[in-house]
Amino acid sequence: MKKHIVLLPGDGIGMEVTLAAKDVLEAVAEEFDHTFTFESKDIGGSAINNHGTPLPEETTSACRNADAVLLGAVGGPEWDNNPSHLRPEKGLLGIRKELNLFANLRPVKGFSNLLHASPLKREVVEDSDLLIVRELTGGLYFGTPSERRNNGQSVVDTLAYERHEIERIVRRSFDAAMLRRKHLTSVDKANVLESSKMWREVVEEIKEDYPQVTVEHMLVDAAAMKLITNPAQFDVLVTENMFGDILSDEASVLTGSLGMLPSASMNEKGFGLYEPVHGSAPDIAGQGIANPLATILSAALMLRHSFHMEHEAQRIESAVNQALEQGYHTSDLHIPGGSRVDTDKMTHLVIDLLKA
Amino acid sequence: MKKHIVLLPGDGIGMEVTLAAKDVLEAVAEEFDHTFTFESKDIGGSAINNHGTPLPEETTSACRNADAVLLGAVGGPEWDNNPSHLRPEKGLLGIRKELNLFANLRPVKGFSNLLHASPLKREVVEDSDLLIVRELTGGLYFGTPSERRNNGQSVVDTLAYERHEIERIVRRSFDAAMLRRKHLTSVDKANVLESSKMWREVVEEIKEDYPQVTVEHMLVDAAAMKLITNPAQFDVLVTENMFGDILSDEASVLTGSLGMLPSASMNEKGFGLYEPVHGSAPDIAGQGIANPLATILSAALMLRHSFHMEHEAQRIESAVNQALEQGYHTSDLHIPGGSRVDTDKMTHLVIDLLKA
Ligand SMILES: CC(C)[C@H](C(=O)O)[C@@H](O)C(=O)O
Ligand SMILES: CC(C)[C@H](C(=O)O)[C@@H](O)C(=O)O
Repeated sequence: MKKHIVLLPGDGIGMEVTLAAKDVLEAVAEEFDHTFTFESKDIGGSAINNHGTPLPEETTSACRNADAVLLGAVGGPEWDNNPSHLRPEKGLLGIRKELNLFANLRPVKGFSNLLHASPLKREVVEDSDLLIVRELTGGLYFGTPSERRNNGQSVVDTLAYERHEIERIVRRSFDAAMLRRKHLTSVDKANVLESSKMWREVVEEIKEDYPQVTVEHMLVDAAAMKLITNPAQFDVLVTENMFGDILSDEASVLTGSLGMLPSASMNEKGFGLYEPVHGSAPDIAGQGIANPLATILSAALMLRHSFHMEHEAQRIESAVNQALEQGYHTSDLHIPGGSRVDTDKMTHLVIDLLKA
Repeated sequence: MKKHIVLLPGDGIGMEVTLAAKDVLEAVAEEFDHTFTFESKDIGGSAINNHGTPLPEETTSACRNADAVLLGAVGGPEWDNNPSHLRPEKGLLGIRKELNLFANLRPVKGFSNLLHASPLKREVVEDSDLLIVRELTGGLYFGTPSERRNNGQSVVDTLAYERHEIERIVRRSFDAAMLRRKHLTSVDKANVLESSKMWREVVEEIKEDYPQVTVEHMLVDAAAMKLITNPAQFDVLVTENMFGDILSDEASVLTGSLGMLPSASMNEKGFGLYEPVHGSAPDIAGQGIANPLATILSAALMLRHSFHMEHEAQRIESAVNQALEQGYHTSDLHIPGGSRVDTDKMTHLVIDLLKA
C-alpha cells in the first residue's frame, strides 16, 4: 500500500521522537512492501517562531491531504507568557477541531518490568488494561459563549453538545468495547449536569444495538476514585472532553510509565492524528535521550486504525515489548538489571527486533 | 459558650454516625462547660419520604437559625430512579446554595497505622497532608443556562463566575495556607477556559496581600497526575466547583481511609455545614457497624471553624488518633493486630479518651 504521512514534530523532544517513529515506519514499509511518503510541517511553538501562528494554514491543508498525521509534542517555557492566541497548545486544539478529530483513544496498559515504578502497589495495578475514549471536539472546550462580561466583573464558559456529537463518540466507544472485553463505563455527572443526563440517555439508546456489551454508568467523581483503587475493573471508558482530559491524565500515571503511552485522535472516516501522551519535555530536548517508544507505539496505532495494517501494528508492538523484556530502557525509566540506552539506540533495537 | 446545632442525619448510615458525633459533642460540652443544644431535621431521601421534597423549607430555616449544621449523608437505591427534582442529592446542592456555603474544605491526611490499606505505596503517600478548598456554590454546577435546546437535539451547561465569587474563595484559601505550610496551588485549565484565565488573574492579584505564601498555578490535568505521583508536594489546593469535586474525591482514596475524612462547607461569616466525605453506605445501614470517625472529626472541624474552640477540636482529634493507635477500628478498616469494634464502642472509646 501507498500512504502519505504528515509529521508534525512540534517542540522540545517532539522532533527527536517523531524522527525515531519515522525510522520505524520506514522499516515497516520495507519489511511489508508498503510505500510511506513523509512531509514535515510546523505546529505549536515552532510554528509561532517560523510563521507567527501556532497553526499555519499550510499545516492544516497538508494534514487534510495526508492519509494520517503523526505529532510529537507542543509547548515550552519560551512561549509560556504569550497571549492566548499565540500559545503552542492553540495549534493542537485547532488541528483537532479543523480535522474534526472527535474521538481521542488513550489505551493504558502496564509493562510488567516497568510496573515497579508505579506509585500504586503492584497488586492494585498489575492487571489493568483500559482504554479511555475522550470526546475531543466539543463539550466544555469548545462551547460558546466563552467570554468576560459586565466590564470583566463576570465570566462564562459553555459545555455544549449536539445530540449527534454524543451519539458518534458513544458508538465509537461501543465499537472499541466489542474489540476488547465488551465492558463499557460511561462517565458523566448526571446528578448535576443537563448535558450528562442527555449523555446517559444516548448511551441507553445506543446500547440496544450492542447487546453483547455490558454497560455501566459512573459519576466522574467516583471514576476518579476507582481508577486508583481498582483500575483493573475498567475496560473501555467514554466521557466528555474535559472529564476525559482529567481522567486520562490521571490514568496515565497509574502504570508508572507515562513515557510509553500512545494516543489516537480520529474523525468519522478513520483518518487520525497520532501522538504520544507525554509532553515536549523541554528540559531534555536536543540531548538525544528522549524515550521514543510512546511515539513509536502511536505509529503502531496509526497502522492499525487508519491503514488497517493490524499485522504490521502488532510487529511494532511486540518489538517494543521485546526491547523492554531484554532490559533496554531510556533514561526516564528504570529496569533493575537492565541497560540504559539513548533515543537512537532504542529506535534501532526496535527496528532490528521487528525485522527479526 | 452556648451553641445551637442542627443535625441533618439524612439517609443510610447518616443517622448512626450523626448520633455518634452528637454524643461526642455532648461530652465536649460537659468537659469544657459549654451548652450545646440540638435539633434534628430531614434532608435527602428521608425528607422526600416524609415531606415530598429533598429540602423542606423547615430544614432550611432551622439551619439559618442555628450556629452550625452537622450532616450525615444522603442517598440510596430507593431514590435512584426518581426524577431529578426528587433526588436526595438535590437536598445537598440546595442547602449549600441556600446557606451560601461557598467554601468547601477537605483535608486529607493519612493515619500511620491505616496507610497499609492505601492503593499507593507507603513511601509515595506517607508524608501527605493536604487541604482541598473547593468553590461550592458556583462554576459548572450552578451556571445558567443548563437546558436542552432545538427540540432536544442539543444541550448546554454553563460554567459561570462573578469576579467576587472567585475572590472570596481564593482569599479563603490564602487564609488557610497561612495557618498551614504557606503553600498554595491554584488549579485551573487556563490554556482552554476563559473562566480559568480570570481565576488565575484573581489569584495573581490577591497574592500581593499574602507575601508569605508561595503560589503555584497548575493545570487540572497535571494536578490529577501529581496527586497520585507525589501527593506530599501539596499543602493547600484551591479550585472551581467541578474540578474540586473530581480532585477531592481522587484525593480521598489516596490514604486508604475514606471512612476517616471530614469536610466543612462555610459561608462568608464562618457559619458552616460539616459532614463526612463518605456516602450513606446503604448496604451496612442500621447494623450499628458504621465508622463514626469521619463525622466525629467533622464535629471537630465545626468546633474549630465555627465556634473558635481550637482546644476542644484538638481534644477530639487526639482522642481519635489515640483510639487508632490503640488498634481500635471499625469494620471498614483493618489494623494488623488491632480490635474490630462497632459504632457505639468506637464512639465511647473516643469519649473516654477525650475525657482522660
Ligand atoms: C495542551 C492541552 C490543550 C491538551 C488538552 O487539554 O486537551 C492536553 O492536555 C491534552 O490532553 O492533549
Ligand atoms: C452528591 C453530589 C451532588 C455531590 C457533589 O457533586 O457536589 C457530592 O459528590 C459531593 O462531592 O459532595
